[in-house]
Amino acid sequence: MREVSIIGAGVTKFGELWDKSLRELGLMAGLEAIQDAGISSNDIDALYVGNMAAGSLVQQEHVSALIADYCAMAGAHVPSTRIEGASASGGLALRQAYMAVAGGFIDVAVVGGAEKMTDVSDSESAHTLSMGADEEWESQQGATFASLHAMMAQAHMTEFGTTREMLSAVASKNHGHAALNPQAQFPFPIKPEAVSGSGLVSDPLRMLDCAPQSDGGAAVVLCASDRAKEFSKKPVSIIGSGQASDTLSLHHRASLSRMPAIGVAAERAFAHAGRKATDVSVAEIHDNFTISELIALEEIGLAERGAAGQLTLDGATALGGAIPVNTGGGLKARGHPPGATGVAQAVEIVQQLRGTAGERQVKGATLGLLENHGGTGATAVVHLLEMN
Amino acid sequence: MREVSIIGAGVTKFGELWDKSLRELGLMAGLEAIQDAGISSNDIDALYVGNMAAGSLVQQEHVSALIADYCAMAGAHVPSTRIEGASASGGLALRQAYMAVAGGFIDVAVVGGAEKMTDVSDSESAHTLSMGADEEWESQQGATFASLHAMMAQAHMTEFGTTREMLSAVASKNHGHAALNPQAQFPFPIKPEAVSGSGLVSDPLRMLDCAPQSDGGAAVVLCASDRAKEFSKKPVSIIGSGQASDTLSLHHRASLSRMPAIGVAAERAFAHAGRKATDVSVAEIHDNFTISELIALEEIGLAERGAAGQLTLDGATALGGAIPVNTGGGLKARGHPPGATGVAQAVEIVQQLRGTAGERQVKGATLGLLENHGGTGATAVVHLLEMN
Repeated sequence: MREVSIIGAGVTKFGELWDKSLRELGLMAGLEAIQDAGISSNDIDALYVGNMAAGSLVQQEHVSALIADYCAMAGAHVPSTRIEGASASGGLALRQAYMAVAGGFIDVAVVGGAEKMTDVSDSESAHTLSMGADEEWESQQGATFASLHAMMAQAHMTEFGTTREMLSAVASKNHGHAALNPQAQFPFPIKPEAVSGSGLVSDPLRMLDCAPQSDGGAAVVLCASDRAKEFSKKPVSIIGSGQASDTLSLHHRASLSRMPAIGVAAERAFAHAGRKATDVSVAEIHDNFTISELIALEEIGLAERGAAGQLTLDGATALGGAIPVNTGGGLKARGHPPGATGVAQAVEIVQQLRGTAGERQVKGATLGLLENHGGTGATAVVHLLEMN
Repeated sequence: MREVSIIGAGVTKFGELWDKSLRELGLMAGLEAIQDAGISSNDIDALYVGNMAAGSLVQQEHVSALIADYCAMAGAHVPSTRIEGASASGGLALRQAYMAVAGGFIDVAVVGGAEKMTDVSDSESAHTLSMGADEEWESQQGATFASLHAMMAQAHMTEFGTTREMLSAVASKNHGHAALNPQAQFPFPIKPEAVSGSGLVSDPLRMLDCAPQSDGGAAVVLCASDRAKEFSKKPVSIIGSGQASDTLSLHHRASLSRMPAIGVAAERAFAHAGRKATDVSVAEIHDNFTISELIALEEIGLAERGAAGQLTLDGATALGGAIPVNTGGGLKARGHPPGATGVAQAVEIVQQLRGTAGERQVKGATLGLLENHGGTGATAVVHLLEMN
């Protein structure tokens, strides 16, 4: 297998972007990544598109062809493939593109992720998100995405003594990071007390524990490492990739306080890279709810089991801490367009490793981890990036 | 890159299967393929799922995890990835799995395709199919999937003198094949006159020019060829794989009578395999409308430009002819569950190459071609299979 590098990255503003369509979001992110990479569209061998639910949200399947078309790749008949795994769609697209380049099929791939959630009502977009859970066993029975995560939070609190304050610290920390990220949907700080005092959604989760529904696009350009220097002075290597599945329904699992697929995906990525959790200097974690960030940190081994809450309260996962997590603001504050999220994580880590993250730069960052999952953890994908 | 073989194949009955859910269709096809391969679920390294529109049709995204779960792969956290490219979803899933095995990432992959179309009204499922076209430029303007193909048919008739009788010969031939396939949705012959006399849908296309809306599942098991003999006495090699894109909208193309992405995908597959069109002994072609089969035959080079209609009238593409096409009945008569179609094509060719196709066996078949496309040809994927 060949070494693969990321040579370009681009991301749109995330938010309620009523003047931007899905194709525009894909185009904007793609063009920025292509320009950043210094390649032309003639250099591109394949496009991979992460998107969760354009069929339900904007009545458009076949998004792969749509984005290829609008990024001027139709003339050269560039193969384009859409990957869907609920909120893990972006990370899965990155992994498929990585395998295609590493396997020697192609040299240069663009990975784009995009989602347009706000053209429908809030209840419709919430319903769409719930399609990442098991329709017959969960959604149809009245379980919402928030209520499933609330059960996980309750279990975690019961088993490990995780507190309301710990959950609030996650959201507050990620908003603090987002305040330094002009592309974030909510680029402003919020106090932990504001999180704890926000409206109850599903006990114990409150409004500010939940990631928003967002429009946005993100893209990275992958290149076989032996050609990367043709285009980029600062290629970032993909040194590990791991993916794992779990039961779609939460109730089929042995524990409500865990998401084992995340741990398995991380193990596979670490084994692939020959690294371990203590080597990671900066991480993007899938905090669709505050509890998810805590569980994911524990599954990956960035925190001991049950200790992620205290670690967060202690500031270890904030900028300046031992292992800064979600320096871009996370899903909570950067925003969460599901198809784009996993790719936006890669964009953030590329900026961190290049040393171009501005005010939110983690000093001396060398190894970055991306964790992206779908549903209540039925699909998880982890990547490890390192500066060449 | 390593050689890859298909070592197992399974397909459900296609049709209006009101007593079968999406997960059951995936499970039934997957189990049959696994049993046919002689592997156990412990041998499976990854699952790839082709599905077009479960979000719109059965309110379920994240189908990858659903199928992995119900095929008992969640316990081992087997990675599962859904691929979508409208009606090309199945063929694209086959290609991604092929690349993962050929690239050396995994040894054994299951490729499953499934779609459940008949839980919604006919108008809703027709609307869902139209999501494979361009929503803003086509569907929203009133263009239906049938009307877009009708324009292609009109152009082909005008440019090449293709006739009503030639279109009818395609449907009649595929029904004749389906009559020999017990898994087909419409396993009975129809006369060309019945096609010509069926109700007008969009001039010149009539009801019997159009593939039906179907439920169904199909699966194949891929294995690195150096391990294939561990499991199977009759592995079939994947010797070529090609994919190409085109503009999503029909009106953005230079010609209405062509689908160039099919030709490019075929060229790429032939180049990969080191073979040419005249080497093909049996082909599965994506006949979502009768006109599509004619255009695809010409793009691939199985017929001269403009000559596919006469070739069909002459019987060359029927069983017993020079190049039998759609021996399983094609989309027209076997049925067309979009996610399953591309995989069902592989199942048919595997049976032909193994010599187990029963009454519809093509004698001496050695090289099979699968052509699967999405929308009006904005995504095309072609594979070449050969008996080891």
